[in-house]
Amino acid sequence: MNSDAIGVFDSGIGGLTVVKELKELLPNENIIYFGDTARVPYGTRSKETIIKYANQDINFLKNHKVKMIIAACGTVSSVLGANAPVKEIPFTGVLLPAVQTACGITRKGRIGVIATPATIRSGSYGRAIRTIKPDIFVAGSACPLFVPLVENGFFGKDNEVARLVAKQYLAPIIAENVDTLILGCTHYPLLEDIIADIMGEGVSLVSAGKEAAKHASAILTERELLNDGKEKGTCEFYVTDSPEMFAENAKIFLGYPIDGEVHKVDIDALQ
Amino acid sequence: MNSDAIGVFDSGIGGLTVVKELKELLPNENIIYFGDTARVPYGTRSKETIIKYANQDINFLKNHKVKMIIAACGTVSSVLGANAPVKEIPFTGVLLPAVQTACGITRKGRIGVIATPATIRSGSYGRAIRTIKPDIFVAGSACPLFVPLVENGFFGKDNEVARLVAKQYLAPIIAENVDTLILGCTHYPLLEDIIADIMGEGVSLVSAGKEAAKHASAILTERELLNDGKEKGTCEFYVTDSPEMFAENAKIFLGYPIDGEVHKVDIDALQ
Repeated sequence: MNSDAIGVFDSGIGGLTVVKELKELLPNENIIYFGDTARVPYGTRSKETIIKYANQDINFLKNHKVKMIIAACGTVSSVLGANAPVKEIPFTGVLLPAVQTACGITRKGRIGVIATPATIRSGSYGRAIRTIKPDIFVAGSACPLFVPLVENGFFGKDNEVARLVAKQYLAPIIAENVDTLILGCTHYPLLEDIIADIMGEGVSLVSAGKEAAKHASAILTERELLNDGKEKGTCEFYVTDSPEMFAENAKIFLGYPIDGEVHKVDIDALQ
Repeated sequence: MNSDAIGVFDSGIGGLTVVKELKELLPNENIIYFGDTARVPYGTRSKETIIKYANQDINFLKNHKVKMIIAACGTVSSVLGANAPVKEIPFTGVLLPAVQTACGITRKGRIGVIATPATIRSGSYGRAIRTIKPDIFVAGSACPLFVPLVENGFFGKDNEVARLVAKQYLAPIIAENVDTLILGCTHYPLLEDIIADIMGEGVSLVSAGKEAAKHASAILTERELLNDGKEKGTCEFYVTDSPEMFAENAKIFLGYPIDGEVHKVDIDALQ
């Protein structure tokens, strides 16, 4: 079982930032990635629809005999909250690991959260934070344009459009004087430069995707499920829309050209 | 049959700009609108996926006994091109009516087209224009951020973000010295102020949605299918994601609060 793959899924392509972290932390692990690119984005949809899509994504990975599942999607993680949708194998979303880290490093007890509208609407970050430390103040701001900005190349320190939008979305968070900011969506690391700039030096950024990868690594180590092979792990990708379009855009998120086969999955075949 | 509804569909909510035009031109007509909000946007997806979704949308309307179908979605219209996917009843997309109008008004024979990536990639506007007038020059520019900008409230004359993005997307069109610009997506009328400003006074804008509504009106008149009832027509809306979210956002596109029931349709029930 230890050579079985780690299953990672996302509404689309953003979850590749989690794959990137995993490859750095656990280079020997095999990874199967599922991206629901025919129905992306999830973050602007209703809770009911998000749960339905997430269960289909999880079933797909289960059918591929993975040893662990990571929901590399901020929206899905948030809608699920503390409810693990899988019992037979380890599971993590990106919400709880980020919350644990943020609660550990905040000095003033004031944490900001930026995420998709669905995540902010659910109030899940606030609930999870207050379960750990009831007296922490949490300020949230929905950033619906961040995903399309990143997916269409509007990022990087000098991008004026991304900076203008980020200023607008971050203003209510800055006004609340937070000292820690959770990036609650796996697309946001690409805007990290700009966000760090606008928030200023006194604010620590916590990337939900990076924390999830660290948490997954800890779980696999603890349960002695790590792959003890000496070879570099492989990656396989499954998407519900065009594999070519996915492969073309993957580089933005991985930082290098995609290094594994990309297969097409028909959404009608999802259960 | 004349009191049967006109069926209008779109990937989401943008097609409501066509409903708005129809209500003005044909106030006595009943309208059934289908918006595939659980899978919006279509414009960034592959051709294969778009055709599959469009056929499901059309079948849904057919099952509601409509007397005509309008594809109020620039992406679908473009992928279909001159192929009418319905034979039994009249059908129009938004592409051909806009092309006819643009070919009629261009003075220098230089037409610009702005639309979603799928529409521009397909080259459908250029092909349709050259079928009518082979010597017309066509310049296209994909504007992938326009739909998310509009859907997230980034529009209106004073919106700095929308203006900055529009400047970037329109630059290659301006460089080609066009005298007519087709707005090839039903979301774009909300950015018309800004686009008109940037293009300058010498350029005529042709809104694909408005032309489609005029064309539909002409077809129904010619075939004597107009509703001869004296009462104001009704509207019924069907969406695949949350009806509440749809009703909330509809006002942006209609210019007034939604005036009909909004029903939820399960995407698994689509054929």
